[in-house]
Amino acid sequence: MKIYADNAATTKMSDTAIAVMLDYMQNHYGNPSSLYMIGQEAKEKLEQARSDTAEIINAEPREILFTSGGSEADNQAILSAAAIGRKQGKKHIVSTAFEHHAVLHTLKKLESDGFEVTLLPVHENGVVDPGELKASLRDDTCLVTVMFVNNEIGTIQPISEIGEICHRHGVIFHTDAVQAVGHLPIDVKAMNIDMLSASAHKFHGPKGVGFLYARKGIRLTNLIEGGAQERGKRAGTENLPGIASMVAALKESVDNMQGVSERLTAVRDYLIKGLSEIPHCALNGDAVFRMCNNVNFSFEGIEGESLLILLDRKGISASSGSACTSGSLDPSHVLLAIGRVHEVAHGSLRLSLSDDADIEQADYIIASVKEVVEYLRSFSPVWRDLVSGKSKFIL
Amino acid sequence: MKIYADNAATTKMSDTAIAVMLDYMQNHYGNPSSLYMIGQEAKEKLEQARSDTAEIINAEPREILFTSGGSEADNQAILSAAAIGRKQGKKHIVSTAFEHHAVLHTLKKLESDGFEVTLLPVHENGVVDPGELKASLRDDTCLVTVMFVNNEIGTIQPISEIGEICHRHGVIFHTDAVQAVGHLPIDVKAMNIDMLSASAHKFHGPKGVGFLYARKGIRLTNLIEGGAQERGKRAGTENLPGIASMVAALKESVDNMQGVSERLTAVRDYLIKGLSEIPHCALNGDAVFRMCNNVNFSFEGIEGESLLILLDRKGISASSGSACTSGSLDPSHVLLAIGRVHEVAHGSLRLSLSDDADIEQADYIIASVKEVVEYLRSFSPVWRDLVSGKSKFIL
Repeated sequence: MKIYADNAATTKMSDTAIAVMLDYMQNHYGNPSSLYMIGQEAKEKLEQARSDTAEIINAEPREILFTSGGSEADNQAILSAAAIGRKQGKKHIVSTAFEHHAVLHTLKKLESDGFEVTLLPVHENGVVDPGELKASLRDDTCLVTVMFVNNEIGTIQPISEIGEICHRHGVIFHTDAVQAVGHLPIDVKAMNIDMLSASAHKFHGPKGVGFLYARKGIRLTNLIEGGAQERGKRAGTENLPGIASMVAALKESVDNMQGVSERLTAVRDYLIKGLSEIPHCALNGDAVFRMCNNVNFSFEGIEGESLLILLDRKGISASSGSACTSGSLDPSHVLLAIGRVHEVAHGSLRLSLSDDADIEQADYIIASVKEVVEYLRSFSPVWRDLVSGKSKFIL
Repeated sequence: MKIYADNAATTKMSDTAIAVMLDYMQNHYGNPSSLYMIGQEAKEKLEQARSDTAEIINAEPREILFTSGGSEADNQAILSAAAIGRKQGKKHIVSTAFEHHAVLHTLKKLESDGFEVTLLPVHENGVVDPGELKASLRDDTCLVTVMFVNNEIGTIQPISEIGEICHRHGVIFHTDAVQAVGHLPIDVKAMNIDMLSASAHKFHGPKGVGFLYARKGIRLTNLIEGGAQERGKRAGTENLPGIASMVAALKESVDNMQGVSERLTAVRDYLIKGLSEIPHCALNGDAVFRMCNNVNFSFEGIEGESLLILLDRKGISASSGSACTSGSLDPSHVLLAIGRVHEVAHGSLRLSLSDDADIEQADYIIASVKEVVEYLRSFSPVWRDLVSGKSKFIL
């Protein structure tokens, strides 16, 4: 059986998204900035894509800026809010300890530039406490940036509540919604979101394209200077084939959202139940406030990397955390943030299911993980020490 | 007849590039940062694309950084050299008056950040004088950035000479080669180029992808912070389908380069000869040191915009200058830089030929331009004043 269970890292493009990309590559290659017909047609299609995108999240077309992906959108959002804050003498930013590195590293850069950053704890369940967020706000807070859905443990944050608190305090609220757009209903107005980042390849669209929503009135700082594209806020010839393909994928994901969500929630809970039978393991992140396709477990006494390699041999593509940091030997900063100790964080497995996942696949995954964990423990010195009582079980 | 003659703005993707894109979208969607098989296969393909790209410009694989396009590459190159300069107390940059806005606007940003920028004149022929460049260098010069080929008038700059001068003076040399890569032979070592920007959609590759070559030893500053992709210098999931498609297009362009160049040079010169017969017009830029596919004329007494719209009705897609600034009413900064006055700069036409352009197409273009120019002049008050002697002809 072949099971791709790493959709939080990237998704396979949908047939619709591929068909649109192909059509645009072949037939709509005009430069949207050009005056002649094929340029102007490209321009119209670009603006149609913008209003379609806006409509889906209840924004206005001019509030949508197309980017090369989620990381670029995160960088631009945060630097823009910081520039606004600096002008007002406000140099304090609130975020969380388990944001994506596109957020954390941008905040790090701002810290070296005189900003002060408060990273809120996310507790054992991996959910931000709105009360703590409220208490962290200061007179000089210019930005709150909290991710919509955590990319490793899939926990869904109380975005509406956070947005309301921010707006009551006159603070800009940005959310890295890379894992949420196309998967959860989003209404930027109702949710009090000022800025939102999205990435096409997380919802069956193409790689290399994403968007930034920025409420009108928020002056964006350019990350890429040059031509007058995107209202002068993002230079470079517009990637119209990619943008059109992204919007097609987004519409399709939104249309399928409810059905997929109901079905996957059942598969996810079945998986959680099945994997919980493995001795000395624990689910990472809240069991309820989590994405319908995310399962993340820690297993004591094993190395996540070996687990992944052996599961791969059984046809299961999974990960131990964010793909963006898989080259690193450090344990996941997300798992550390929810209180897992190093040894336990190392032995973790993230499954992010495909839309067509079913109980049959879940049974195969459960059986495979059980077998592989047992096998790895059979020659693990750490496990031997645990079983013999030399060291103590944590989970 | 339908003639697309705006290849300097963007090109139609080649069938090969489209086929590769399609194959990768369907079959190679793995995240190159992932450990399992389809991730590792993607990683191998990414590194193969990197070494193929490097080989074409005689660089080393690790000197190639994939970006979202030429503008991003320009921004990152210039900001990186500036950061290196700042550390050494060198805050002077030399460039030219007719660079692309991706360069000029980045330099503007650096000026407001304490850098001093010298913009060299480019004279009537649109070519930088290496002697003037040499004379402009100072002890505190940290960067020379000169475009390889001008995007509006197609003039080819003496890159090797400039590179040699820079290296003799220990100054980093960057070239915006967006109009040159895939069209002219490039050897970064032989040409003493330290950094070079390229964009796929200018050589029949996809939009939204490009690359930056940066000689090893040059420490890059991140434009986009986040994951550890691209040796930690450019965050965001790699757009592997776009990258692979770009490399396929690049190889194809390089393979066809000599044949296309010989044929197009003949068509270009035929066009220049034919269009020169129109009274009171002038070729913009050097007739010899220019791209084989570029023809740029100014016609006295008319508006370029009307010319383009009427040519479009005849099936000819052309432009008056850079697509990136076509929304603006200002005359081309490139034409002003080569000494054209406002009125003359406004009445300009850029034709950038497709690879399959031939004499038959050239005849049609010449006849169409003659007809349209004559028509526009027939009711132009500016032309009436010129003819009646009220004002003086410039061309």
